[in-house]
Amino acid sequence: MEKKIVLVGLGLIGGSLAAALRGFEDYRVVGVVRREETARYALDHGICDEVSLDARAAVRDAAVTYLCMDPDGIIQSLSDLRDDFCPGSLVTDVCGVKGAVFQGASVLPAGVDYIGSHPMAGTEFSGIEHSFPEMFRAAHYIVTPRPDSTAEHLDLLRRIAAYAGFRDVVSTTPEAHDAMIAYTSQMMHIIAVSVSDAPDLFTCRGFEGNSFRDCTRVAALDAPLWTQLFSHNAQALCACLDTLMENLDRYRAVLRAGNTAELRVMLEDSSARKKKINLEIR
Amino acid sequence: MEKKIVLVGLGLIGGSLAAALRGFEDYRVVGVVRREETARYALDHGICDEVSLDARAAVRDAAVTYLCMDPDGIIQSLSDLRDDFCPGSLVTDVCGVKGAVFQGASVLPAGVDYIGSHPMAGTEFSGIEHSFPEMFRAAHYIVTPRPDSTAEHLDLLRRIAAYAGFRDVVSTTPEAHDAMIAYTSQMMHIIAVSVSDAPDLFTCRGFEGNSFRDCTRVAALDAPLWTQLFSHNAQALCACLDTLMENLDRYRAVLRAGNTAELRVMLEDSSARKKKINLEIR
Repeated sequence: MEKKIVLVGLGLIGGSLAAALRGFEDYRVVGVVRREETARYALDHGICDEVSLDARAAVRDAAVTYLCMDPDGIIQSLSDLRDDFCPGSLVTDVCGVKGAVFQGASVLPAGVDYIGSHPMAGTEFSGIEHSFPEMFRAAHYIVTPRPDSTAEHLDLLRRIAAYAGFRDVVSTTPEAHDAMIAYTSQMMHIIAVSVSDAPDLFTCRGFEGNSFRDCTRVAALDAPLWTQLFSHNAQALCACLDTLMENLDRYRAVLRAGNTAELRVMLEDSSARKKKINLEIR
Repeated sequence: MEKKIVLVGLGLIGGSLAAALRGFEDYRVVGVVRREETARYALDHGICDEVSLDARAAVRDAAVTYLCMDPDGIIQSLSDLRDDFCPGSLVTDVCGVKGAVFQGASVLPAGVDYIGSHPMAGTEFSGIEHSFPEMFRAAHYIVTPRPDSTAEHLDLLRRIAAYAGFRDVVSTTPEAHDAMIAYTSQMMHIIAVSVSDAPDLFTCRGFEGNSFRDCTRVAALDAPLWTQLFSHNAQALCACLDTLMENLDRYRAVLRAGNTAELRVMLEDSSARKKKINLEIR
């Protein structure tokens, strides 16, 4: 019998991942959606091999289940579907915070494996109509396995990530993930919205260059989703904001004081740090 | 006789602009450099039609002179070359701050026109070896004319900008330019270096996505150049940083308080602002 990868939720990430996974080994890709309309869209656009409106029925014989909703939706589904997941199968998700979901997965019965996934990709849009299978090219795929997660399931996720075009698979703990993501992702979004909150936003037309476009791009975010993501990681995010604001304040202080020599030393240091990490992460 | 556009300084911007202007109407593109080595590079790579090591001689019969150094270098050259510029010719520059350069241009003799230019493009690199003629595609070309600048010269800059691939030409005052650029460009650079100053920079490998790459890209900046750019516009930049830090602090406060409802309202507002301006500036 054909094996099934079931993706519950075909939004931006679920839809893109489903489309990227079609044809993976001998797996059939099944999308679970709530609305007939989304089901039709998914089939019409070849997003998955099959769609279902019944999550319980779909996960019952799934080898892998991806929960692709917002954090609270994933936590709720772990609880709602706990007795439906196939024994011996793998349950994972695509959530941008891992601690809260990891904890939510503690309701799963013995014999159902859970490994958290965070495909570090996305755009500022949402919904299946913005999904595209190339989304994951050159992106990191982060996994947070449990101590008792099986080597077979970890290996399966590695093959899935490679097939979908990810650059690599990074394994870590939910706590380390959330601390790091507060810095690399969540803070970028808080910066983008904070810049966009300035009155100048509506008068700057004609004066914006690539640095402005790049920095503010993610401000056009899905507010309900990001409210959850930030709230589930508020402490780590606030710690990052503390450091950021101290650093911004250091620059403001030397600018105010007209201390050009010190400003240059600070910029040389920062620029050297960035050039060094560029060499390391590319 | 063929007319000449002289670019004094063939760095990242001067080099790119020279290369983008080759073949413009019946103008010959002449680059002025200090080092034989740069002269050879420019000729070998077809960056300009001709190179010169003698700025005084080169500008004497130039119809248009672009000063393409750092702000202090431009201000110095305006003074040094004031008696060499051809009467009736246009002197301009490519500087990212306009007030200080505009003031520097007050040394020019009557009959030499000055219009400030700011081609809003660039990369995080510097030097002729990183220049490329496509740099200006879809970028804004900002001009700050003097009250007595001629319509002919303004029109010439418009044709130059169109030929080099700019999206449009935006005319403004030096003061308005500097206030706006503090927000759209300079602050983006202060944000990027402040993010890069965090200790997490060197431990975040594997956890960075596009928002992090985009926001921090410009941190790899030319420190001496940006020290000058920031210093010449410190007051406007500090005012922008004040607003930014107030907005960051508002987010931090609701996160700390766990005020999810208020956080969502704030994110909805910011996101709506950004989506609105996206429609307007694209």
